[in-house]
Amino acid sequence: MTPPLGDIAHIGHAQLFTPDLDASVAFFTDFLGLTVNGQDGDTVYLRTFDDYEHHSLVLTAREQPGLGRLALRTSSEEALRRRVEAIEAAGGTGKWTEDEPGLGRLYVTTDPDGHEHALYWESEHYQAPQALKPSLKNQPQAKPNRGVGVRRLDHINFLAADVLANAEWQEQLLGARPTEQIRLDSGKIAARWLTYTDKSYDVVYTSDWTGSEGRLHHIAFATDTREDILRAADLAIDTGVFIETGPHKHAIQQTFFLYVYEPGGNRIELCNPLTRLVLAPDWPLITWTEEERKKGQAWGLKTIESFHTHGTPPVQP
Amino acid sequence: MTPPLGDIAHIGHAQLFTPDLDASVAFFTDFLGLTVNGQDGDTVYLRTFDDYEHHSLVLTAREQPGLGRLALRTSSEEALRRRVEAIEAAGGTGKWTEDEPGLGRLYVTTDPDGHEHALYWESEHYQAPQALKPSLKNQPQAKPNRGVGVRRLDHINFLAADVLANAEWQEQLLGARPTEQIRLDSGKIAARWLTYTDKSYDVVYTSDWTGSEGRLHHIAFATDTREDILRAADLAIDTGVFIETGPHKHAIQQTFFLYVYEPGGNRIELCNPLTRLVLAPDWPLITWTEEERKKGQAWGLKTIESFHTHGTPPVQP
Amino acid sequence: MTPPLGDIAHIGHAQLFTPDLDASVAFFTDFLGLTVNGQDGDTVYLRTFDDYEHHSLVLTAREQPGLGRLALRTSSEEALRRRVEAIEAAGGTGKWTEDEPGLGRLYVTTDPDGHEHALYWESEHYQAPQALKPSLKNQPQAKPNRGVGVRRLDHINFLAADVLANAEWQEQLLGARPTEQIRLDSGKIAARWLTYTDKSYDVVYTSDWTGSEGRLHHIAFATDTREDILRAADLAIDTGVFIETGPHKHAIQQTFFLYVYEPGGNRIELCNPLTRLVLAPDWPLITWTEEERKKGQAWGLKTIESFHTHGTPPVQP
Amino acid sequence: MTPPLGDIAHIGHAQLFTPDLDASVAFFTDFLGLTVNGQDGDTVYLRTFDDYEHHSLVLTAREQPGLGRLALRTSSEEALRRRVEAIEAAGGTGKWTEDEPGLGRLYVTTDPDGHEHALYWESEHYQAPQALKPSLKNQPQAKPNRGVGVRRLDHINFLAADVLANAEWQEQLLGARPTEQIRLDSGKIAARWLTYTDKSYDVVYTSDWTGSEGRLHHIAFATDTREDILRAADLAIDTGVFIETGPHKHAIQQTFFLYVYEPGGNRIELCNPLTRLVLAPDWPLITWTEEERKKGQAWGLKTIESFHTHGTPPVQP
Repeated sequence: MTPPLGDIAHIGHAQLFTPDLDASVAFFTDFLGLTVNGQDGDTVYLRTFDDYEHHSLVLTAREQPGLGRLALRTSSEEALRRRVEAIEAAGGTGKWTEDEPGLGRLYVTTDPDGHEHALYWESEHYQAPQALKPSLKNQPQAKPNRGVGVRRLDHINFLAADVLANAEWQEQLLGARPTEQIRLDSGKIAARWLTYTDKSYDVVYTSDWTGSEGRLHHIAFATDTREDILRAADLAIDTGVFIETGPHKHAIQQTFFLYVYEPGGNRIELCNPLTRLVLAPDWPLITWTEEERKKGQAWGLKTIESFHTHGTPPVQP
Repeated sequence: MTPPLGDIAHIGHAQLFTPDLDASVAFFTDFLGLTVNGQDGDTVYLRTFDDYEHHSLVLTAREQPGLGRLALRTSSEEALRRRVEAIEAAGGTGKWTEDEPGLGRLYVTTDPDGHEHALYWESEHYQAPQALKPSLKNQPQAKPNRGVGVRRLDHINFLAADVLANAEWQEQLLGARPTEQIRLDSGKIAARWLTYTDKSYDVVYTSDWTGSEGRLHHIAFATDTREDILRAADLAIDTGVFIETGPHKHAIQQTFFLYVYEPGGNRIELCNPLTRLVLAPDWPLITWTEEERKKGQAWGLKTIESFHTHGTPPVQP
Repeated sequence: MTPPLGDIAHIGHAQLFTPDLDASVAFFTDFLGLTVNGQDGDTVYLRTFDDYEHHSLVLTAREQPGLGRLALRTSSEEALRRRVEAIEAAGGTGKWTEDEPGLGRLYVTTDPDGHEHALYWESEHYQAPQALKPSLKNQPQAKPNRGVGVRRLDHINFLAADVLANAEWQEQLLGARPTEQIRLDSGKIAARWLTYTDKSYDVVYTSDWTGSEGRLHHIAFATDTREDILRAADLAIDTGVFIETGPHKHAIQQTFFLYVYEPGGNRIELCNPLTRLVLAPDWPLITWTEEERKKGQAWGLKTIESFHTHGTPPVQP
Repeated sequence: MTPPLGDIAHIGHAQLFTPDLDASVAFFTDFLGLTVNGQDGDTVYLRTFDDYEHHSLVLTAREQPGLGRLALRTSSEEALRRRVEAIEAAGGTGKWTEDEPGLGRLYVTTDPDGHEHALYWESEHYQAPQALKPSLKNQPQAKPNRGVGVRRLDHINFLAADVLANAEWQEQLLGARPTEQIRLDSGKIAARWLTYTDKSYDVVYTSDWTGSEGRLHHIAFATDTREDILRAADLAIDTGVFIETGPHKHAIQQTFFLYVYEPGGNRIELCNPLTRLVLAPDWPLITWTEEERKKGQAWGLKTIESFHTHGTPPVQP
């Protein structure tokens, strides 16, 4: 059951729950510069300017913040069929749904930790209305004139009770390639970074210290430049957006980052990888030891405590 | 009659005429990120986020575009008195007015070419309303969340029939220091850059090929970074702002630039000098020859034709 | 004979001929910040700091400048076998060689225009000597402390007598995906951009106005930031590197660019795509018309004449 | 005895002592990109590329690191005479010396805390040798092709037993303008920022927790961009330069910063103010309270402990 690499083309979009839908929508549109592209009851669809699909983010009102669905686009109808067969052959279950605008049917299943994953192939390419038409025909939508103006949903970081089990699920059933990981002195894998593309990661599993399942560490949006992130930090302090940590540079994956909380309570990363890609087809999984991690981030910043503890949904006492 | 250097503290604001006031206000607020700070009939006052005074720009409806007043703040009440005396001792005339909000009385006169200059000392420091309060107390106003977000009015470039006569008026009566100039092979000074501050220039005179008087080449706003200018160029093409030339780097003064036209027809520069300053008290006036100018801009871009011909108001046939 | 996408992993390195080997080596090390990683007679191997392989560029002394070999790494040994079979099934010929350090055997063939292509799988991952060890273990080599410090060989632009025939050779035999093209009013394809990765292009064919075959338009190196390119332009003018055009932004592919000539006469591009990628598995080939091309580059810069005429080797009179 | 503002034109250069002269020279040339411009015994003169004078930094071998002389250029010969008279009228003493190349006589005195200050007027403008000739005639020297390439010596931060007494010495005798300060709940002034120019500060006094006198907190060099500082952080980790803290943004003065230690033990700041200037002639001194300082830096970074304790020379036990 060797999965063909390349059946998953890329992450499509993520769904977040928020106890304050209006404030969350305002954050993503005013601060990040996303555009609302439809609403259905208490669910709002939003998109980054360079997304070729209908939406990059789904916001749904709910009492507690947290993660809903992560949607992954396959590289073909056939690839979708292969992945579903592999999941079910491995004892997994799922159900087909057609509950998202702009997309065909989605196969909804969960990873071992319970995070919902939706696989789909059919996807209408976005056609901007007149007011959002870009100047250049190789860009789906005009660059937003407000907020940060992020280019795309970049990656998702899941908290998980068992990092390795979930990472291997992505690898063996979906064809993800692991690029970097943290191994504690005990041998336990505390985090693993995986990719479906030439980006150095699309999906991350991080150990949930609470032992809870199904929680979210953060979702991340890519900016065009590091300057965009420095500008974002200035906009954040002047508009009341809470900065958790950054701007700084991760040692792992070398991403330039800024972590903020959206008003619903979910952690959001702004990230910039410069032009770094992982093109080697035989890239060796890089392992960071506990001691190496103690050195902090790339330029020496110590990782702040809340980074290890804050996840959504919050853990019930 | 040696003028004490330092009597003029800095340029305060500029006034532009526009045949389409609404469109011009929209350009300066939506694209450049200025804030409207008052209106009086067909005159609108706008400010950049780092201006400590009431306004940086005045827009006034008029049939033809062009330059109204350039206002210069003196370094004290005494300095204001000295400059007025010097002007009148040299045969100049002017009149006192109190026609601008946030400012005390202004002495309004003209340079030899007829460009209106207003000198003033009294100026209320801006106090941001709650919605525009910045996070940091050393900044007058929150950083704008839309458009380019320029920091300040940086300089003004006057077209003049006789560059040298006007430059010497600034030098001898107002205490400007010349930092760079273009001298044609004929000996004629085709342009001169002057400063009142440690910036390498605040005021420029450029030869008007039409021989007309009182016209404007451009006013310029400084951005925080060159990246802001690259981002501005992207916003320009996606929002229909006309780019005349740039982004590129001037050889003279080394300014990174982008020239656009506002909807009223006036040329507006976005400029970034990096951290370059002219701190030498004995800075020698630098002269560029006709041949040196033929090399084009710093990185070799040939100067575009309209740069030599377009001025406001347009010349009547 | 549908080629499996993904058999070619990425471009590996390019070979340039130069009539002044020492000056060319100095250009690539001092100005671009590459590192020499071996020499064999009149051939010098150089690498960018983020290349995981032995070399990114080969410089070989020869009377005329021009392009030698473009090497493409396959995604597996099996993929290499498949591509060779496909080439030979289509009537192509090639020969196996083992003439490059750090690599296994290469299959050397040519595209219809005669540009040499080498396919290979085996590649030793680079191990930096102590003096070049990086701080972070996910980077092959320390960031260079001199020159621009480019991250990777990014793409190659071939001049060709028949763009379409060559592009289709890449598509049908090697599995390249076309992302953008120029179609003249006559229907002729004047240029086509193709990719093997998630980058929006790796290989380009441009119509050679002279009708010659086998010539080079340019090879390009990716920088981390647009600021790196602005800094490069300043370094260029202060170290005597000839700037042909830029910095500016292409409309096609939206690449931020600077074109210079290396001392041997070959055109070299510094390019930055920001974080733009083409992730859609069903990306529609974008066609630019002759009229659209007349608008110039993204921000309106007119394409300079030598861009259409200069190629290497120079055409013999 | 009101001092005429403007008698001090700008800071000229600083002298550092170092127990490892060779390593310190290598740091400033290889990492910061300064150029050696002369040596006299165990003293080496270095310059930034945009310094119009002979040198920006003097390194002198000595057993302990620490600060030697800060040199301030006056705005004229007459201004020099006035400042010397004012110092001596206030009971200060000094002596004239001609011990630095490229400069005329210097008047050497000390602030109340014992930091040596040298005032001078005569200064030969730098003429670059052929190898260092810049492309543009408004720049003293070619932009360095190695290291960070800082533009100028930007400011100096003195540790002092009594901040207020020293700041007032600068204000009353030299004409410095205070722009920002920290006032503890006890009423004590813990730090004050002063300027002689339109830069928001040139000289800082910070309370020395040890109560020692004459020590140095840091000297700072200005980069052209924030990107230069991010690049510098990457170069630092790859070349073994110790990063104390940063890159981040100060709340006070809003400077983007990176603090490193040079091999002699002195703290060096790389700083970037964007295009921020203090142009208001009536700029009100801004006071930060103890509570406001507890919020940390602009984007929330907590100030690291060594920032409060490390100074040079080290305090003897």
